[in-house]
This record gives sequence, structure tokens and C-alpha cells, in this order.
Amino acid sequence: MAKTIPVIERIMGANDQQALANRARFDQAGVKVINVMASPGAGKTSFISATLKALDGRLRIGAIEGDLASTVDTVKLQKEGIPAVQINTGGGCHLDANQVAGSLDGLPLDDLDLVFIENVGNLVCPVGFALGEHQRVGISSVPEGDDKPYKYPTIFANIDVLVINKVDLLPYLPFDVDAFMRVVRSLNPDIRFFPVSCVTGEGLEEWATWLVELAGDN
Amino acid sequence: MAKTIPVIERIMGANDQQALANRARFDQAGVKVINVMASPGAGKTSFISATLKALDGRLRIGAIEGDLASTVDTVKLQKEGIPAVQINTGGGCHLDANQVAGSLDGLPLDDLDLVFIENVGNLVCPVGFALGEHQRVGISSVPEGDDKPYKYPTIFANIDVLVINKVDLLPYLPFDVDAFMRVVRSLNPDIRFFPVSCVTGEGLEEWATWLVELAGDN
Repeated sequence: MAKTIPVIERIMGANDQQALANRARFDQAGVKVINVMASPGAGKTSFISATLKALDGRLRIGAIEGDLASTVDTVKLQKEGIPAVQINTGGGCHLDANQVAGSLDGLPLDDLDLVFIENVGNLVCPVGFALGEHQRVGISSVPEGDDKPYKYPTIFANIDVLVINKVDLLPYLPFDVDAFMRVVRSLNPDIRFFPVSCVTGEGLEEWATWLVELAGDN
Repeated sequence: MAKTIPVIERIMGANDQQALANRARFDQAGVKVINVMASPGAGKTSFISATLKALDGRLRIGAIEGDLASTVDTVKLQKEGIPAVQINTGGGCHLDANQVAGSLDGLPLDDLDLVFIENVGNLVCPVGFALGEHQRVGISSVPEGDDKPYKYPTIFANIDVLVINKVDLLPYLPFDVDAFMRVVRSLNPDIRFFPVSCVTGEGLEEWATWLVELAGDN
């Protein structure tokens, strides 16, 4: 088993190097990039759609969609009028910097302000692989329950922003938002929260305003 | 990179070998074992709790709880009066047969009819690692949305049973059960479905009856 360690180190090193190259390409194009990570079904694509509506043309958006298979999310976003490209990982449980690099020619980076990279739905593996993003945004959804930070601490400790999605379901489900945020802050004191509903629109204007400020740093 | 391939093959071979040894140990003890796989927050632990209630003493149950960190699920199940042991994977994204083997001395196998192994919440990685189980049970939950089989086909193609959980939320969420089952069947024609709600109890008697039959084969 000892022989596997240097191999893993070389792979991680190569990924970090490619992530830096991606970041340089994003900065040169003047585009801010957000790596969106969450469980399957937390509402990543719906959240990107709702963000488009909330921004209402204030920023020019593109998307890179990561999935094991299918192009359903990419087709959905293209129908909403934004440039979007699909990465299919085969069986892969996360995106890596090389896959993202290979997808970039499919996006008009120079004409965009902000690109969402929707990672493979997975609370464990994606967080270990930098893609060149400026911000790491996690999404937790109310139906998942408020105990996830205890069980998947690594991701909650290693994101910049946490969106709490599907707050319109709070009346029907046991989820203590204050207790949840307290546990997450104990893992990650500087994290920023956005409780939102993509159904009612609650919280999306605050999120959109924050994105406009982020993109203004370009 | 070529050098990594034999290493991965050796690891998989070792896992399969240990899974066979686990299976032999289960069969000798006369216990049936179910590997439960699902996204984070699909309701794996709640489903095991609801199963205990529905069985109402008809079977003697034990549990092995897999999580990156914490013992919250194990404590929850122990409080309900069943023997349960925790495996913490550190950062690991799935259980493996060796971890399960190491946990077995914590369970009175000879005095049990059925053991649930609750895998790490992850729709991608767990399915690649046999644990010695007799049945692989996936759980999809209504709030995750009905498009998951398109995006995570591997797990849907490689389970014996699919529980559709949280059907009490169908009035509030867009989820087409028939269309969902049709897509899953296209990946896995022999799969068995159990639509359930752990809140209302719907569907749990059918599931409990099936478990009693399964354990009767011991």
C-alpha cells in the first residue's frame, strides 16, 4: 500500500497546478468563477436558474455542468438563454481541474462576468479538488436535515458560502436553522449564509446583490 | 499514470475477497445483511427506525452505521434498543469490506436475524465496494427530484431494491413517481420498488413483510 501514496500526491499536485492555470485564464478573461457543491437533489441547477432570474440581466452568466452521465442540466440552462457546457465524468465522483480546462473552449469567457461550475452531486469527494474557482459555494437543502455538518464536516469546513435551499419547506419539516448555522460556524467561523427558496424567491435578492459585488471586483 | 492501474486492481481484489469472507460469516451466523445506499439526507437512519417500528419485534435487528465523522446515527438507533456500531471513515466517501469486518465483533451476530449497513451518504462511490451484503437497497427521496437516474445511473443499475422515501411530500413537490420508476426500470428491469413515508407509515408494512420473507430464507 505504501506505493500508492506518492502516486496520489502526484495526482493532487497535477490537479492543483491545472487549477492555478484555470484561475489565471479566468482572471485574464475578467470572469469570476463559483464552484457549486452539494448532495444530489439539493437543488444546484434550480438555484442557478433562480439566480439568473434574480439577477435579471445585471451579470452575464455561463455554466459548466458536471454529472456522471446525461446532459439534462445543460439543456435546461441553455434553454434559459445562457451558454452552458456539460462534463460527463463517466463514473467519476467529482470534477477535476483538467476536466474543467477541457470544457472552457465551449464558453465565451471574455463575454461573461460569472461562471457557475456545478460539481457532481456529492458531499464528500468534490471538496478535495480545486478547479480554479474564486469562491466555493455549498448548498444544503432543508429536506436533507440539519444534522449533516456532524456527518460530513470536511465540506462545511472548506467552503466560503453556504446556501440553505428550500426554506419554503420549513413548515413541513424538522430543521432548526439557527442550530444548523451554529454547528456550521463552529467548523468554519468565517462562512457566509444565504437562506433561500427557489420557489418563493425568498433570499435571492440578497444573494444576487452579493454576486454583483463579487463580479464588480473583476 | 499507467502504474496506478494495477494498484487499483489489487485494492478491488482485496475488497472482494474480504466481502466474501464477511458473507461467509453472516451466513454462518444465519443473519441476512442489507447494504443501504443513498444521498445524504435521503432518510437512511429514519428509514431504519421506521422499519423497526413496522417490524414490531418480528425480527431481531442490528445496524452498522457509516459516516465520515460523528456517532449521531448510532446513538439514535441504540436508543431505540437495537445493537448498533459506528464506522467513521475519516474523509472516506464509502464503506469497504475491511471496515465492516472490523466492526462485526461489536454486534451479537448469532442473536440477530437482519443487519442494516448504512453506507456513507453518497450516490456515487459506495456502489463500487461489496461489503458481503445479501441485498443492496437504494433510497431515493422525493425532495431530491425525479431526474436522478439520468445523472447517477450506476447506482440505480446496481441495486436490488429501491425505496422511494418521503412520499408524504408528493403534494408539495414536483416528482412523477411513474416516470421515475420507468426510467429506473430501463436501467434495471428486475428492481423492486417500495414507495414509503417514515412520517405517515405508508408502504412500511409491505417493506416489513418483504424483510420477514428475506430473513425466513436463513
